[in-house]
Amino acid sequence: MTELLLRVRFAETDRMGIVHHSRWAVWLEAARVEWLRERGLSYRELEDSGVSLAVTSLALSYRAPARFDDELAVMVQLREARSRRFRFSYRVLLLPDRELLAEGETVHVPVSSTGRAIRLPPAWQERLATSHGGGN
Amino acid sequence: MTELLLRVRFAETDRMGIVHHSRWAVWLEAARVEWLRERGLSYRELEDSGVSLAVTSLALSYRAPARFDDELAVMVQLREARSRRFRFSYRVLLLPDRELLAEGETVHVPVSSTGRAIRLPPAWQERLATSHGGGN
Amino acid sequence: MTELLLRVRFAETDRMGIVHHSRWAVWLEAARVEWLRERGLSYRELEDSGVSLAVTSLALSYRAPARFDDELAVMVQLREARSRRFRFSYRVLLLPDRELLAEGETVHVPVSSTGRAIRLPPAWQERLATSHGGGN
Amino acid sequence: MTELLLRVRFAETDRMGIVHHSRWAVWLEAARVEWLRERGLSYRELEDSGVSLAVTSLALSYRAPARFDDELAVMVQLREARSRRFRFSYRVLLLPDRELLAEGETVHVPVSSTGRAIRLPPAWQERLATSHGGGN
Repeated sequence: MTELLLRVRFAETDRMGIVHHSRWAVWLEAARVEWLRERGLSYRELEDSGVSLAVTSLALSYRAPARFDDELAVMVQLREARSRRFRFSYRVLLLPDRELLAEGETVHVPVSSTGRAIRLPPAWQERLATSHGGGN
Repeated sequence: MTELLLRVRFAETDRMGIVHHSRWAVWLEAARVEWLRERGLSYRELEDSGVSLAVTSLALSYRAPARFDDELAVMVQLREARSRRFRFSYRVLLLPDRELLAEGETVHVPVSSTGRAIRLPPAWQERLATSHGGGN
Repeated sequence: MTELLLRVRFAETDRMGIVHHSRWAVWLEAARVEWLRERGLSYRELEDSGVSLAVTSLALSYRAPARFDDELAVMVQLREARSRRFRFSYRVLLLPDRELLAEGETVHVPVSSTGRAIRLPPAWQERLATSHGGGN
Repeated sequence: MTELLLRVRFAETDRMGIVHHSRWAVWLEAARVEWLRERGLSYRELEDSGVSLAVTSLALSYRAPARFDDELAVMVQLREARSRRFRFSYRVLLLPDRELLAEGETVHVPVSSTGRAIRLPPAWQERLATSHGGGN
């Protein structure tokens, strides 16, 4: 489990006065990048080597709004790691009380720079295979 | 069924060279606003009267990427209309061949400007109740 | 002179109830791409050939807000075209009365995919050289 | 002078592989909010009281690109504080070497929730009047 702390930016709100529902996906992604970094994996280096983790599905369920200047924690966990398919789940909490605001899930497939489905480099495969499940 | 045509903006792409997965939600929303407009319902007027259709869930499944300058059609359909819950489904097609790029769904609840769940104005309720299902 | 028509998206607004100041730059860019297209120049093809028009400066002056669902016209004009520097100016008008909402300017330099300043392909140079000034 | 540290998000990049020029304005805004907070001024509270600092102009000059995962420092300084006009300037630096990537400026006027130009609350006026210039 990795936790990314962030503060809601003004530009992330909409005219309802709350964070626009599309912006939460950007936070999930930022938390995912930190999850990788904490396990010694640089997503920037992966991309520089010509491999991306394309998003094939996104699901978000919103329980309560996030507002400008709120401090949030985005918790991310790897739920499934196959050679060609990875699934992460997320919870977004409002600090300091850690009220649950939203839950989400993303599914990813490794692709080459031309978009073809490929396998991850062995170092990534091993690291991801050992990082999902119970306590991670 | 309503169809919104749009052209992919450069700013909607990311460093993978394709449209970022978070941006598609913005297109679904724009299509939803057109769906309402075609049925005589102005979402701007609804909001000006103090009622919003808050998004409580978002799901997107991506089959193929969208690219800068692509011309797309976003098809939207009302799938469910209860007094306090509305569900829309979407398909995003690449023109001119109408290749399916993504499918999505959003669920909405009417809320007051303070975020409290409320009923829609009667005119909206009637219009939505008669607009979902088969040929719409 | 080229004119791009657009309708303000909900996601482009912020909690002030108006369009966030950063979003207007996205509209200027979309108008610029149309300006090129009207002169037979595809920015997508230029990028696919490894050349980009990097933005080196952006200036926007806001006179009145744009709001959700407004219909706007973005007018764009090439003001200066040297071999390694291009300057466009913009006016954003509120329809149907064509009230001036904002004025802007961007400066661009052609760069290779590694970010090195280069010259544009000859066809682009000629087209741009003949397209700026008075009536364009 | 206030300094906001941030890490470039994937969603902030575009197909050139660098941060889109429109996104930098979001960073300047986030830095401005921190500048206010460090001086005891909550922009969220100001807005909740019905007063906003509308942006009337934005200028950005880009010297070098920012890339995904870069760590940046956004430095912000109040340059001018009149009763109805405030001007901030910014520098965006690439860490750890503090290479200058971009410089910017924004001008603001206090407005009511209906968009009418107003004066700031006295506490804000005093605080801003004493916070600009040399060492701030």
